[in-house]
This record gives sequence, structure tokens and C-alpha cells, in this order.
Amino acid sequence: MHDLNSSFKPSDFPFVDEYLSLADIMMDRDLAALGDAFVNFVYSLALSFRKSRPIGSKLDNNTLASALRESGLRKMLPPRMDRHTQANAAEALIVYAWLSGFLSLRKMLQILNSSEKLEDSWRILLQKIAEGIKIL
Amino acid sequence: MHDLNSSFKPSDFPFVDEYLSLADIMMDRDLAALGDAFVNFVYSLALSFRKSRPIGSKLDNNTLASALRESGLRKMLPPRMDRHTQANAAEALIVYAWLSGFLSLRKMLQILNSSEKLEDSWRILLQKIAEGIKIL
Repeated sequence: MHDLNSSFKPSDFPFVDEYLSLADIMMDRDLAALGDAFVNFVYSLALSFRKSRPIGSKLDNNTLASALRESGLRKMLPPRMDRHTQANAAEALIVYAWLSGFLSLRKMLQILNSSEKLEDSWRILLQKIAEGIKIL
Repeated sequence: MHDLNSSFKPSDFPFVDEYLSLADIMMDRDLAALGDAFVNFVYSLALSFRKSRPIGSKLDNNTLASALRESGLRKMLPPRMDRHTQANAAEALIVYAWLSGFLSLRKMLQILNSSEKLEDSWRILLQKIAEGIKIL
């Protein structure tokens, strides 16, 4: 086990460097499981920020699946994926963006607060990630 | 809605300053709901760090309730609280420590990786928070 004391950075999660493409990231079910925990936390934090009170919530699969389609990322994945699997793809990509150091938690909250409706801002977040990640 | 661009800091969550005591923090069910999302994310991240692969998981109430008792914090709360409510108290306190800026995510991961068994490290984390927070 290495020391986190002065060295916590994206490279502490070496598996991040092993993905070969956006589709590779989006199809990783283990990354999606970590992403599910991350997205629920970021969503709860964004709600708490907007409402100025602590809120814990879970983001529904439909919102993420719709955001994935509207962002144009859906078509990079195989056909006949159900909404749950589409939501997984979005969750995997969002946590990848954070683990890889592409977007900080602060920047994500900023994006999630950039549109009037929080639901709309997941598409914007996914588009920024897709445009910014260079391993396509 | 204020701008997060250059100003994300604990004071962006002004409700953090409204708690009067550790018991006040631990009894807030809304803070516990946000804490639940936070703790599941931190737990998943700590597991991913230990195993060097992405893992998403939920921390069970028994682990948190035991950690609360072993840390000495349980006795600050009313008697006859079930394990779920005890776990809530721990979750509220852990997210408070992060929101208030007392412990960074990096520092929490460091603490969670300081003992051989991840289960044991929740007690250490709770004790550090209880000792460090000055609003007792």
C-alpha cells in the first residue's frame, strides 16, 4: 500500500491509464459501479448547493440515459442497450473524467450549476468530457 | 445562484455554519442523507485505491454503527437509537468534516488506508473528526 500523505493524485489510480477509447471507458461495468457512487454524491452536492441545505439523492437512470443520447455519445455504443446500461456508460465516463484529473469536483459543480435545470446540465457535462478527453 | 468558477469552498455551503454541537450535526437527518452519498463514494474510492481497480460498493450500517460506538461518540446521542440511526449519525459527521474543510478527500483516503483492515479505519476517522472539530 503506498502513502497517500503527500501524493494523492490521479496516478494513484493506475487503472485509469489502461482504457483505450471512450467506448472502452463506457463499457466498463466496474468503473460504472464506482461512477454510480460518484455521480450520486456529485448530484447530492449540486442539489445541496442549489438549495442551500443538505440533500442526499440518487440520480435516476432515465436522466443519465437521455443525457447520453443528447450528448451524441450513445451512438458510440452497441445498439440494443437498455437505459440502465446507458446510464452506466454515463456514470463510468463521469468518474473517469474526475479520476483522470480532466475535471475537478469544483469544475463539475460549476458545470452542473450552469443551466437553470439541473437535469439539462448532465448533457453539457458529458459533452465537455467527450470533447476534452483525448484518447478517442 | 452564485458562481462556482473561482469560489468553491466550504462557505459555498452556508448551512455548515449553523450547527451548534457535535450532537446537533449527528442528529440532522438531511445531513445524514448527503453523508450517505458521500460515505459510499469515499468507501468505493478507498476500495478502488486498495485493490487498484474500480470498485463501487455501499458501506453497511453495522460497520458505521460499531465505529460510532468504539469512537466514544455513541454516548453523546440519546439512548435507544437503532443501528440505522447510529450509522446516519456517523455519515452526517463524516460529510460535515469534509464540507467544513476540516478534512480533505485526500486526507480521508489517507486515514482510511492507515490500518490493515478498512473496517477498523472508520473508528479512527470518526475519532479524528471528534477530536478536531471545535464546536463541541
